[in-house]
Amino acid sequence: MDRFVGLTARETVERIAAQLDRGPTSADVASYLDQQDTLRHLRRKFLVPRMADLPQADLSLVDGSQECIYLVGNSLGLQPKKAGKYLREELDKWAKTGVHGHMAGARPWAWAENTLEGLMADVVGAKAEEVALMNGLTVNLHLLLLSFYKPTAARHKILLEDKAFPSDHYAEESQIRLRGFDPAGSMLGLAPRPGEETLRTRDILEEIEREGDSIAVVMFSGVQYYTGQLFDMAAIAEAGRKKGCFVGFDCAHAVGNVELKLHDWGVDFACWCSYKYVNSGAGGLAGAFVHEKHDHHIKPALLGWWGHDLKTRFLMDNEMQLQRGVSGFRLSNQPILLVCPLQASLEVFKKTSMPALRRKSLLLTGYLEYLIQHYYGEDPARPHKPHVRIITPSDPRQRGCQLSLCFSVNVAGIYRELEKRGVACDMREPSVLRVAPVPLYNSFADVHGFVQALGSALRACGQGA
Amino acid sequence: MDRFVGLTARETVERIAAQLDRGPTSADVASYLDQQDTLRHLRRKFLVPRMADLPQADLSLVDGSQECIYLVGNSLGLQPKKAGKYLREELDKWAKTGVHGHMAGARPWAWAENTLEGLMADVVGAKAEEVALMNGLTVNLHLLLLSFYKPTAARHKILLEDKAFPSDHYAEESQIRLRGFDPAGSMLGLAPRPGEETLRTRDILEEIEREGDSIAVVMFSGVQYYTGQLFDMAAIAEAGRKKGCFVGFDCAHAVGNVELKLHDWGVDFACWCSYKYVNSGAGGLAGAFVHEKHDHHIKPALLGWWGHDLKTRFLMDNEMQLQRGVSGFRLSNQPILLVCPLQASLEVFKKTSMPALRRKSLLLTGYLEYLIQHYYGEDPARPHKPHVRIITPSDPRQRGCQLSLCFSVNVAGIYRELEKRGVACDMREPSVLRVAPVPLYNSFADVHGFVQALGSALRACGQGA
Ligand SMILES: Cc1ncc(COP(=O)(O)O)c(C=O)c1O
Ligand SMILES: Cc1ncc(COP(=O)(O)O)c(C=O)c1O
Repeated sequence: MDRFVGLTARETVERIAAQLDRGPTSADVASYLDQQDTLRHLRRKFLVPRMADLPQADLSLVDGSQECIYLVGNSLGLQPKKAGKYLREELDKWAKTGVHGHMAGARPWAWAENTLEGLMADVVGAKAEEVALMNGLTVNLHLLLLSFYKPTAARHKILLEDKAFPSDHYAEESQIRLRGFDPAGSMLGLAPRPGEETLRTRDILEEIEREGDSIAVVMFSGVQYYTGQLFDMAAIAEAGRKKGCFVGFDCAHAVGNVELKLHDWGVDFACWCSYKYVNSGAGGLAGAFVHEKHDHHIKPALLGWWGHDLKTRFLMDNEMQLQRGVSGFRLSNQPILLVCPLQASLEVFKKTSMPALRRKSLLLTGYLEYLIQHYYGEDPARPHKPHVRIITPSDPRQRGCQLSLCFSVNVAGIYRELEKRGVACDMREPSVLRVAPVPLYNSFADVHGFVQALGSALRACGQGA
Repeated sequence: MDRFVGLTARETVERIAAQLDRGPTSADVASYLDQQDTLRHLRRKFLVPRMADLPQADLSLVDGSQECIYLVGNSLGLQPKKAGKYLREELDKWAKTGVHGHMAGARPWAWAENTLEGLMADVVGAKAEEVALMNGLTVNLHLLLLSFYKPTAARHKILLEDKAFPSDHYAEESQIRLRGFDPAGSMLGLAPRPGEETLRTRDILEEIEREGDSIAVVMFSGVQYYTGQLFDMAAIAEAGRKKGCFVGFDCAHAVGNVELKLHDWGVDFACWCSYKYVNSGAGGLAGAFVHEKHDHHIKPALLGWWGHDLKTRFLMDNEMQLQRGVSGFRLSNQPILLVCPLQASLEVFKKTSMPALRRKSLLLTGYLEYLIQHYYGEDPARPHKPHVRIITPSDPRQRGCQLSLCFSVNVAGIYRELEKRGVACDMREPSVLRVAPVPLYNSFADVHGFVQALGSALRACGQGA
């Protein structure tokens, strides 16, 4: 795709259309883009569901033998083909050698997750020692907040998005209560301006500037789950640092989606799950990051034997030799069965890079935006024509791969019709359809197919253009 | 085995030997006991490693095609045969339907672990609503202590075993610090009397009586990992309650090993792992118990979306509707890949009962003790003969299936020779060999074979009897 570097997605699409002598909405443009896609071989590393296997697909409308249009990697990533092989290897080791699997084989269970932390660190822009793979996301968020959120009378607030993901909201609320403060006064939710859907970076930075002296922790998501907005993490981290706040990010929707530079940005701490863009399967092993600048003065509040130096861990003398940095936050031994799919996925990431994925992603999502605007943009001349409003920022630097769509007509009906047409995407309460073309495995043909299915879905709802 | 009810293991063995006209150490006694074992078919539900597959087995000493002598289920249980099948089913669902697996199929990922909590509750003697399957053991211990350990100036101590498992030790130490107290004054470790290896129940109860007013939490293991001692949980719970302390148990070595009646005993809270006697694989899903008597006044300190009522969880309105009891302690969504082997194992437990397993266990471990004492008991007449001291209580009511052996000779050498002979057991620092005949899958022939291998190992170390 290097030929298109420097062009916007719109410019790229229109230039190709002209070159092919087609309209910009022609399927030939999608085919051409796929041919030019130097990452397209990566799709073959994943198991893509077929239309016929989706529970709601209507086989009178679609060819069941075709691969479905899977645009919901923001919720659950596809299965890496090697996941099953690695799992079989570990089941086999367990069957054949029982407890000896802890120390032997390709993935010694007693430290298998440690062998993936370098690969994971590459994806989030961290040093290997700054990353721990463990637990679930919310568990990690709590473990980190216990060390980073230590409110005082003067500095007791947590600044967060007004509509943060529920688990983060509850986590922060309960941490405030645990420390004896009142969420009413200590939980500072930042809402978009009236009539706007997403936050302006300027408003976030000004809020930090204004309230910073009373803020203990700025806790944002990297990419907002509902709107798809990508926050300017570097600027937020810097603004927080200047005001003496700790800055943490929930990277659930950012990891594997956008370029992260947790280390370089000076982010204090972060956590993420691995089942979305990192394709580790439902409930997969989560991640935690603590910047190495904190190695000497930030200690875990809660300890367990897995935080003990591995070399002497099994001497069992009850004298804690705490590992440095985030490694000291480990509590329990980790499940080998979760290491396997995560390894399979991280090995695919290793075949490319986040900058390369991001380049493709900008074009892929830009293409989606282009087609939606082309067909379903609001048309003042035809007020009854159903239209789609994209609440995700139109500035590509402020979004990842996901677009969040609002409809002028009932979204649940549209969603059902899309499902019949072999589209997997997701509807989020109250009224949004989230559509995420994932650069690791989605194609331009997927995007084109989705927009066609959307037209057909709208017509089926009696709302056709 | 019902014919032998009321007899001690010794009496049973000697009676059978007489009946068969053999010596009590004859392999025929083991065969006879296996024939009489009404649970022996359960072994076929598990994959038993073969001698040839153990990393250290010496095939000049053993027949590699034979099943090994696996006596280390106290560390890692064997793989239930159905684990692989269930895992394949879920991998297949992921491959075929992606995100739809959350709500569909035999194990909808969004609540699959909930469907096992009834089976798990049967094993620990609880109501289904008192049990949550989640996280790792140490994580759960912390989540529970955050609610149950709320020290005050007058009542700030945690009473624990002097040599508690390291992770528990570190967990409790760090909870004391988190609350601003000093482990030196608040961590009350109870040691055996001088010259003794295990705690006397009387001493535990007297300590609770004496120190109880300053004790916030009594936190013991159910079965001690090093000595194999089974504590009188009912008596400890009662003694704690009388003094106004909360009483919690780490049941890592008790669950699936001995009969537990967490509910009836009035235990306040408990946690356990599932990879030992519950055979869920390394790092398997752990358990947590909170007695229903606390439903209304004990609340989780840390919250996450998985603690939200399932019916409204996905409305995402950030208004917490907390589930009652232990369910409210859930934080993150749970890994489906860990649900599969746990289901396979709990279905085997369902084919029998803890009382039936316990009946077999008393005889199986009694038989092991009998043979060890017969061959390797200390003999004052032969002071140089190597001997074995069993530090696990000889009273069967004070132990589970594990015996912890101390040798008059170097234990590491013995351990290596046992490994060559196809025995899997484990050595724990500083000097103990832990041997656990598990009633769910071990046979009397396993025990007999172990004792023979032990004789041969001692001879090979040049220390033969
Ligand atoms: C008694 C006891 N407590 C705690 C643990 C630690 O368990 P985890 O690593 O699952 O948290 C173990 C592990 O063997 C144990 O035996
Ligand atoms: C932004 C965000 N935070 C937290 C979570 C909760 O994750 P978990 O259940 O893995 O703790 C999610 C799950 O989708 C999420 O999207």
